[in-house]
Amino acid sequence: MTNVREHVYEPFTEQSVLVYLEKKGLITDKEQVTCKEVGDGNLNYVFIVKDLQTDKSLVVKQALPYAKVVGESWPLSLDRARIERQALQEAAKYVPTLVPEVFDYDDDYAVTVMEDLSDHVILRKGLLEGNLYPHISEHIGTYLAENLFNASDEALGPIEKKKLARQFVNPDLCDITEKLVFTDPYQNAESNSYPENLQEAVESLWQDDRLIFEVAKLKKQFLTEGETLLHGDLHTGSVFVTEESTKVIDPEFAFYGPAGFDIGAFIANLTLNYIAQQERADESNRHEISDYLLETIEQTWAVFEKRYRELLLEKGFEERQRTDQYADYVLEKIWQDTLGFAGCKTIRRIIGLAHVEDIDGIEDETGRLQAQQRAIETGRSLIFNRSVWRSPKSLTAYLKGLAK
Amino acid sequence: MTNVREHVYEPFTEQSVLVYLEKKGLITDKEQVTCKEVGDGNLNYVFIVKDLQTDKSLVVKQALPYAKVVGESWPLSLDRARIERQALQEAAKYVPTLVPEVFDYDDDYAVTVMEDLSDHVILRKGLLEGNLYPHISEHIGTYLAENLFNASDEALGPIEKKKLARQFVNPDLCDITEKLVFTDPYQNAESNSYPENLQEAVESLWQDDRLIFEVAKLKKQFLTEGETLLHGDLHTGSVFVTEESTKVIDPEFAFYGPAGFDIGAFIANLTLNYIAQQERADESNRHEISDYLLETIEQTWAVFEKRYRELLLEKGFEERQRTDQYADYVLEKIWQDTLGFAGCKTIRRIIGLAHVEDIDGIEDETGRLQAQQRAIETGRSLIFNRSVWRSPKSLTAYLKGLAK
Repeated sequence: MTNVREHVYEPFTEQSVLVYLEKKGLITDKEQVTCKEVGDGNLNYVFIVKDLQTDKSLVVKQALPYAKVVGESWPLSLDRARIERQALQEAAKYVPTLVPEVFDYDDDYAVTVMEDLSDHVILRKGLLEGNLYPHISEHIGTYLAENLFNASDEALGPIEKKKLARQFVNPDLCDITEKLVFTDPYQNAESNSYPENLQEAVESLWQDDRLIFEVAKLKKQFLTEGETLLHGDLHTGSVFVTEESTKVIDPEFAFYGPAGFDIGAFIANLTLNYIAQQERADESNRHEISDYLLETIEQTWAVFEKRYRELLLEKGFEERQRTDQYADYVLEKIWQDTLGFAGCKTIRRIIGLAHVEDIDGIEDETGRLQAQQRAIETGRSLIFNRSVWRSPKSLTAYLKGLAK
Repeated sequence: MTNVREHVYEPFTEQSVLVYLEKKGLITDKEQVTCKEVGDGNLNYVFIVKDLQTDKSLVVKQALPYAKVVGESWPLSLDRARIERQALQEAAKYVPTLVPEVFDYDDDYAVTVMEDLSDHVILRKGLLEGNLYPHISEHIGTYLAENLFNASDEALGPIEKKKLARQFVNPDLCDITEKLVFTDPYQNAESNSYPENLQEAVESLWQDDRLIFEVAKLKKQFLTEGETLLHGDLHTGSVFVTEESTKVIDPEFAFYGPAGFDIGAFIANLTLNYIAQQERADESNRHEISDYLLETIEQTWAVFEKRYRELLLEKGFEERQRTDQYADYVLEKIWQDTLGFAGCKTIRRIIGLAHVEDIDGIEDETGRLQAQQRAIETGRSLIFNRSVWRSPKSLTAYLKGLAK
């Protein structure tokens, strides 16, 4: 583990970051560049630095030693900057076109200097504007298969996997996920956040012992199953897109966990968007975008499943891993976990601390309540049916049943 | 991770270890002590140092940078001395009477100075001499429950468990287990070692695709399920006993893995001893020792199960973990894993590199072959029946069926 020398660290300003970049030789003349901090300042600073003469730009991301949540300050290790940077570098080995390029870094300052993606938009935002991105399932399915396979025991063998896993022990950030995804939404916790008119649905969930027990099992898996290096927070806000390009960003929650967690996070966020689309005011392309979302859920899994199997059969470390029987076993477990974690991720976005604009932005109050109730119900179905729904068709059939 | 400064390290001699101890202030006058190296020299040096005036003694254990196996040298990280020492210190927090006391250590020299247990005998040896140890199940059941619970997520919570797990990443030693327990016995590997007259049984095992697939699943669990801090090599050769005292030694294979692995290792070695007893020449106390072994298998689990449940219900980190429903779930998984791993541990001792005196020491060739075949068959049954045999009674009933 790299220890951040905290006495060196200080948060940059728009001015001091340029002094730093000049010293590092990353810009030649700080008088000829513009610099703008564009992060939300809750967890990180994000400076966009643009050279006025060449028009080239770069991003400087710096971790802050706390997270501002619900008005309070939650201390967070600066080491997460190293984890995020190394996770980006790991991903770049396998899918260099699907992550921002890392140009430089400095663990003492908790800083990563990387590709500016200002020409991209956040996928969540793009979907809410009614845009369809034709390559998303191909790109995210490939991203998932390449990363989740290539960091696994089956790819790396006994020594390298453990060395890599040790680099990605991430207690602080895992603690956030454990609290906000697996614990707090299932009890009357201070961090929860939901509208008054959802009180009844929420209390009924807190009394659902069967559900709470299933979530406890999923949490135990999250805590103990170090299968592969995860992104750790792969919602549609962690994906930058253009019509042609997809870039997965912000892997600061990266750690060795169960593969289905990343896939589940992505599918949950498509599911939330789908549920929201049924209630949103713009009916003109509701059918088109609904079909697109269901197709994207199915295809993301299909692309993942096909590529993961190819990689395992081709590059599996041991002969007995390079068999369809073993691949079936591994992929069936990943699929079940995907559904279970997708369920948890869906519910937490309604009851827990961090919401999504997809749902919260529904203007009509009745529609919003309906979407919230449906999201909770869908999350429950995903969790209960994780060993019953054998393919994405089961989930998309369920979602079709909710369509307007 | 502590890095051993390899330029400082050198293997001690019976002379130089005394110079070292004197410098450290652990002995006052090296002219007044005796020193004898008693290790087998394959992995570690073990020096017994005795003060002639006070009659007090201590053990200096030093890791060697290689393992001598089948005449070859297998390089091994010296860091395992730190891992072993820290595992002893962790265990001493919960069961100080069941492990040797650590007096001092020096990671640069890969050295631990600890309690001398020369008045104890190795449990395997004691059992082969026909001795019964009345406290073994109470002691080992307690050792297992306290250690396996107290290092788990349920005991330590989200932050501490991950920090501890990072200290016990143990690639080199896990690699040995993965090869010798889960891989090589199931294929025609150079490391295997078995008598010619077992060739047929061994080849039939290599063709048992169903078994090989189940072992691949168990290996995946061993690789990915970081439930708790294991001893990692808890056979009857890692237990020192007297009539009254039990001390678990040599946890250099310690790492975060599935809890059932340790319990399985212990039960497998009692099982091997039981199978061997049926063929050994001394019939005088065969019934008595057979009954004792079956009772010990049942009671070790019973003591473990009861104490683990108490600890979970009393000290579980979250309210929802402090329920019988959750305890049932966790303990049922541990039990299934115990059986599966016990099966692998039984088979490897017949076909793989490292054998046990219990079986190999059977003088009658026919009896020895019978025991070897039965051990393989028992291992297979343990693996196949791990979700069918609901309690130790199923295993002991099976073993009773083998009795003479």
